[in-house]
Amino acid sequence: MKEAGVGQLLLTDPMAIYYLTDKWLLPGERMYGLYLHADGTRRMIINELFPAKEEPGTEILWYSDTQDSMELLYPLLDQNAVLGVDKNMPARFLLRLMELWENGRFVNGSWIVDRVRQIKDEEEIRRMREVSAINDIVVKELWEQVGSGKSEEELARVCEQLQKKHGCEGVSFEAIIAFGANCADPHHANDATVGRRGDSVVLDIGGRKDSYCSDMTRTVFLGEVSEEARNVYEIVLEANLRGIAAAKPGARFCDVDHAARSYIEEMGYGPYFTHRTGHGIGLECHEAGDVSSVNTAVLKPGMCFSVEPGIYLPGKFGVRIEDLVLITEDGCEVLNHQDKSLRIIPLEG
Amino acid sequence: MKEAGVGQLLLTDPMAIYYLTDKWLLPGERMYGLYLHADGTRRMIINELFPAKEEPGTEILWYSDTQDSMELLYPLLDQNAVLGVDKNMPARFLLRLMELWENGRFVNGSWIVDRVRQIKDEEEIRRMREVSAINDIVVKELWEQVGSGKSEEELARVCEQLQKKHGCEGVSFEAIIAFGANCADPHHANDATVGRRGDSVVLDIGGRKDSYCSDMTRTVFLGEVSEEARNVYEIVLEANLRGIAAAKPGARFCDVDHAARSYIEEMGYGPYFTHRTGHGIGLECHEAGDVSSVNTAVLKPGMCFSVEPGIYLPGKFGVRIEDLVLITEDGCEVLNHQDKSLRIIPLEG
Repeated sequence: MKEAGVGQLLLTDPMAIYYLTDKWLLPGERMYGLYLHADGTRRMIINELFPAKEEPGTEILWYSDTQDSMELLYPLLDQNAVLGVDKNMPARFLLRLMELWENGRFVNGSWIVDRVRQIKDEEEIRRMREVSAINDIVVKELWEQVGSGKSEEELARVCEQLQKKHGCEGVSFEAIIAFGANCADPHHANDATVGRRGDSVVLDIGGRKDSYCSDMTRTVFLGEVSEEARNVYEIVLEANLRGIAAAKPGARFCDVDHAARSYIEEMGYGPYFTHRTGHGIGLECHEAGDVSSVNTAVLKPGMCFSVEPGIYLPGKFGVRIEDLVLITEDGCEVLNHQDKSLRIIPLEG
Repeated sequence: MKEAGVGQLLLTDPMAIYYLTDKWLLPGERMYGLYLHADGTRRMIINELFPAKEEPGTEILWYSDTQDSMELLYPLLDQNAVLGVDKNMPARFLLRLMELWENGRFVNGSWIVDRVRQIKDEEEIRRMREVSAINDIVVKELWEQVGSGKSEEELARVCEQLQKKHGCEGVSFEAIIAFGANCADPHHANDATVGRRGDSVVLDIGGRKDSYCSDMTRTVFLGEVSEEARNVYEIVLEANLRGIAAAKPGARFCDVDHAARSYIEEMGYGPYFTHRTGHGIGLECHEAGDVSSVNTAVLKPGMCFSVEPGIYLPGKFGVRIEDLVLITEDGCEVLNHQDKSLRIIPLEG
């Protein structure tokens, strides 16, 4: 904080608070905050209807449903210091605090915590490996069912059951299961669509174990694959491999993006790769660490993020191949080991 | 907007946008907005990786993962008008916009939409009745299982299955199922606890159908009930009935709170009723319309909210009884019809 020139910090994102305190609470629409001052002061803001205990070194500022939490916090702020606020702090609290503290200086201070969260320690790495190993198994077991006539929605339920069966608390996000033209929407919402011969099948899945997330995508084909789809698949796979090869300490996030994107552009599909190449991951499925052309931050050992190029042809099909990588001392460790060669799944019945 | 002196409005809450446009999109960490100007201009801000169509009267401001959406929006703002922003707008976007527009005037403008959302029209009322009728059935079917030895977590899964079986898309929130001392935490997180003789059992459940939410709490007892618990139950029930009796057009939210709370205070349990008496409900389970001592807004026909007093005795037990009410022309309609008399469930095995 001192280094950043932010004398005090107000975090409101439950996950950021969990990372720093090991306390987990979902406050809904109510204020929940962790206030930190560079002098070591540590204060939590909690509605009195939630259970929590005072602990040495942390004072709790309790408020009730009839109190204005910002009015209680305001007199406790350091009037001489910039206040870093959580990137996700809802406007209703931030604007209220600004109203009370007319001359206050407010900045987005989340990056101070996010930067620390980006670097995984040994225990976090152990968990990231473990939950990704489960994801490898789950996608394989899903492959066995994608040709069975189950709908996207049904397969998403199966995915959830499989993650739990293999030891996860649950999914890290609602699985994206897409058949055929639905694959051309990178964030397709599962529906009752059933696979047909020749369809591409995007399986973008993840689980959560010991609070850490996995996230992987495999694209397979049902019964047969067209020449165009085969060609697109090989391009995306090469882009995925080039992205991974570029992921090493000293390189920048944008270099990884460039490695994957420039190949797709070269092959003529640039306009059909519509999103960033990847995102940070850890306690949350999407964390700081955009793998995009505008992120010039340098990669460091312990960072973990996805490499997930895709090509989306509206009305036809889509292909995405995603792995998680962990930056090591001299390159990266790929956390997913499930086969990426083109796979055709037999269509049952 | 004109009435409120807010010349332009930027909504970012997916539910508020859905209410006004019928478009549903979950943008994750990406910017998603609906900009409205009092002159009728209507503009959506959408990341190009999401599917959306231009429609007459609504321009779409597309941006990519490498663009700063606030930088694109800023030149389009009316420099002479106050900007109302969404109560839930994340600080990372709001602070960025403030940085760009140094002399801008920003206020929380959500209440302009929330005030309209509070008044349910005929179709919304039909849906609220329907989803609550399902909730009545589900709680009855849950009663048949609370004595069977299932854990809180298992019963929550059963609840979800029952909501779906009876036509809901799913639950409107993760059911709170609490046995014994766990009932003393109003927001208890379900765990592996199994009910024992004499336990209070809080069942706080809700479903979602056609996008609208139900929410009801019943408290029952396993095998037997202590004198103290019986007494507390009757007090909470009377408070619930008094709150409902006070819910009529012309009264204020705080009057409903007072009717329920003052009775609990009179009976000596005031300090153990730790939350507001209720909350608005509709598309979201918690909407504008706090039933609390500080909300002096006047009740109007079409408003829908919960009346849910409770008494929580740490280490012992808790009782909460919750119904939804809909304000009518001359009083209120209670949307839940499930029996509230003290109920003792036999303990199996």
